[in-house]
Amino acid sequence: MIENKGILFVLSGPSGVGKGTVRKALFDQATDLQYSISVTTRKPRNGEKHGVDYFFHEKDEVEKMIEESKLLEWAEYVGNYYGTPREYVEQTLESGKDVFLEIEVQGALQVKENFPEGVFIFLFPPSLDELKNRIVNRGTETEDLVRNRLLAAKEEIEMMEAYDYVVVNDTVSHAVEKINSIVQAEHCKRERIAEEYKKALESDIE
Amino acid sequence: MIENKGILFVLSGPSGVGKGTVRKALFDQATDLQYSISVTTRKPRNGEKHGVDYFFHEKDEVEKMIEESKLLEWAEYVGNYYGTPREYVEQTLESGKDVFLEIEVQGALQVKENFPEGVFIFLFPPSLDELKNRIVNRGTETEDLVRNRLLAAKEEIEMMEAYDYVVVNDTVSHAVEKINSIVQAEHCKRERIAEEYKKALESDIE
Repeated sequence: MIENKGILFVLSGPSGVGKGTVRKALFDQATDLQYSISVTTRKPRNGEKHGVDYFFHEKDEVEKMIEESKLLEWAEYVGNYYGTPREYVEQTLESGKDVFLEIEVQGALQVKENFPEGVFIFLFPPSLDELKNRIVNRGTETEDLVRNRLLAAKEEIEMMEAYDYVVVNDTVSHAVEKINSIVQAEHCKRERIAEEYKKALESDIE
Repeated sequence: MIENKGILFVLSGPSGVGKGTVRKALFDQATDLQYSISVTTRKPRNGEKHGVDYFFHEKDEVEKMIEESKLLEWAEYVGNYYGTPREYVEQTLESGKDVFLEIEVQGALQVKENFPEGVFIFLFPPSLDELKNRIVNRGTETEDLVRNRLLAAKEEIEMMEAYDYVVVNDTVSHAVEKINSIVQAEHCKRERIAEEYKKALESDIE
């Protein structure tokens, strides 16, 4: 039997684009994706369980993980650490399950550096093409304002360069459908499959 | 408005894998794909229309197209030429429609050479992993036969190297679903989208 390893999918995008809403809609459906469980130093709230909602750790433990590069990304937020444990992600992928991580752009770029074999999806606001027309056609804008807006749009595009896919969040259900297609298509990628078939065949010949 | 060019999708695979059945099931559904229309020198049959079923041409015309590299691939079959006209494919893509071509492996490799920006999907028999077990475990096979079968399987895998995706034809509906996912995912590829967004933005600045 040919074993299929899971794939790490990272959903990110500019603040306010609706990442959380899309992730929630994705997991409200039946899905084979495993949502990535984060490490945190904040205390568990009512009903939260270690290994389900978060991996709860002491501050010095997380600092040691950071030192030893055991987090794919981390950030400090309101005095607590949050991060994505490499070991948990790798074990889940080894078991054949895909891992899904929703995260802001800075965190996604850290993951990209530490785990480049992940598949990076950029959620894009639906309004860039409209923006273009607005910037140019709105006669009331000053030349400086037009330039600033174009530069901001360009910065968003620069961030996109690190990603594999761009999904326009025109409606949540469209975005979810596209993400599901990306997950399925990635599992059909020849590089992944051919390698596995080759290994399986080569082990026969030995 | 940002214009999206179409994508050429090429479905191929070993003889007998069920390419035609999958293609038919794909086009029996609602689809935005445009099936590629071939050039041929054979005479039209009852009801066949030029530009719908085939582009019907005289032999010397098709030979001129071959000479002038106006076919993405061609073959001779029972004394007639068949081929895929580059101009028709390119015009359809320019109009924003995806083109879908189902073809045997030799033809697909010609298309790959002449139109590398196409997306190449290899339809795979469902039985390779079973084949592996059969080859090894079937005690009745001679050692030579086992070796020949493994070599044949390896040759199929070598052909796969030119392709972007591998779809296992375990059931026709699975294969169709995966092809549809590949089509949708390819339209979300960052390289395509970022390029278009960039062009649109740069044209504003001029």
